[in-house]
Amino acid sequence: MKRTRFASDACPVARSLDQIGDAWTMLIIRNALAGTRRFSDFQNQLGIAKNILSARLEKLVDDGVLELRPDPSGSRHQEYHLTDKGRRFRVVLLAVRQWGEDHLFEDGEEMTLLTDQRDGKPLRRLEARSHDGREIGDADAALEIRRRTTG
Amino acid sequence: MKRTRFASDACPVARSLDQIGDAWTMLIIRNALAGTRRFSDFQNQLGIAKNILSARLEKLVDDGVLELRPDPSGSRHQEYHLTDKGRRFRVVLLAVRQWGEDHLFEDGEEMTLLTDQRDGKPLRRLEARSHDGREIGDADAALEIRRRTTG
Repeated sequence: MKRTRFASDACPVARSLDQIGDAWTMLIIRNALAGTRRFSDFQNQLGIAKNILSARLEKLVDDGVLELRPDPSGSRHQEYHLTDKGRRFRVVLLAVRQWGEDHLFEDGEEMTLLTDQRDGKPLRRLEARSHDGREIGDADAALEIRRRTTG
Repeated sequence: MKRTRFASDACPVARSLDQIGDAWTMLIIRNALAGTRRFSDFQNQLGIAKNILSARLEKLVDDGVLELRPDPSGSRHQEYHLTDKGRRFRVVLLAVRQWGEDHLFEDGEEMTLLTDQRDGKPLRRLEARSHDGREIGDADAALEIRRRTTG
C-alpha cells in the first residue's frame, strides 16, 4: 500500500497513482462522492475487511483526499468528508465509468448509469480536446517537460 | 491480482477496476499508449520486477486490453499492442493526469505535460457535462439502473 516510488515522479499519472492507484481506494472515493461518510457504511457497502478499509481511509486522509470531521449527531465516531481535491476526482471516476460502460457489459445486462437529473439522459462522453475544442487523437498530442506554474 | 469480485458488479466503475484498478496496470497502458511494445522495454521503463510485469501483461491480454503480435523484425519475441478497448483508455489516463497536475505538484516543480502538437498548449480540462453541454455539478447527476443497449 505504501507505494512511495511514484510520489516524486515527474509524470502526473504516476504521481496520482501513488495516491489512488488501487481499486479499493477508488471505490471508497466513489462511495464518498455518493454521500457515504461513516466507517461502518463504507464497510457494509463495499464488503471490505476492516483492516483494509482502515488502512485505505488513513492514507486518503494523509494524502488530503478525505478529512475527518466530528459526527454531527454527537457520537464519538468521526466522519470522512471529501476535500476539494477529493471531490475533483469525480471526473476521473466518470472516465473510468464510461470506459466500463462501453467495454465491459453485454447487451441487455443491467448497469448503473449516471444521468443528468434534468432530463434523465446520460452525461456527455469525455474526450481529449485542445484548449479551443478540436478533437485530439492519439497522434495529435506531445509530451513535454514543463515547470508547474499557477494559472 | 485476480480480483474477480467486481467482475459482475452492476457499477461500471467497479467492473472497470477489476481490470485496471492497479497502479502497474495503468502505467503499462500509459507506456503502451506512448508506443512501448516489448516486454524488455516495459521492464526497463517502469523498473518493474519481471514476474509482476509478466502477470500484469498476461491479465491485460486475457482482458482484451492488449493483444500479442509477432515482432516485425522476425525475432522470436512477441509484441504487446493495444486493442481498440485499450486505446480508448487514453481519456481515463488524461483525467488521472489532470488531477495530478492540479493537486500533486508544487509551483516550479518539473512535470510532464500533454500538449497539443499544433500549438503547444495544454489540452482542455475534462469536465462532466450533459449531452447538450451544460456543466454537471455534484448535485446535478443521478444514478439509475438501466439495461445496456447498443447505440
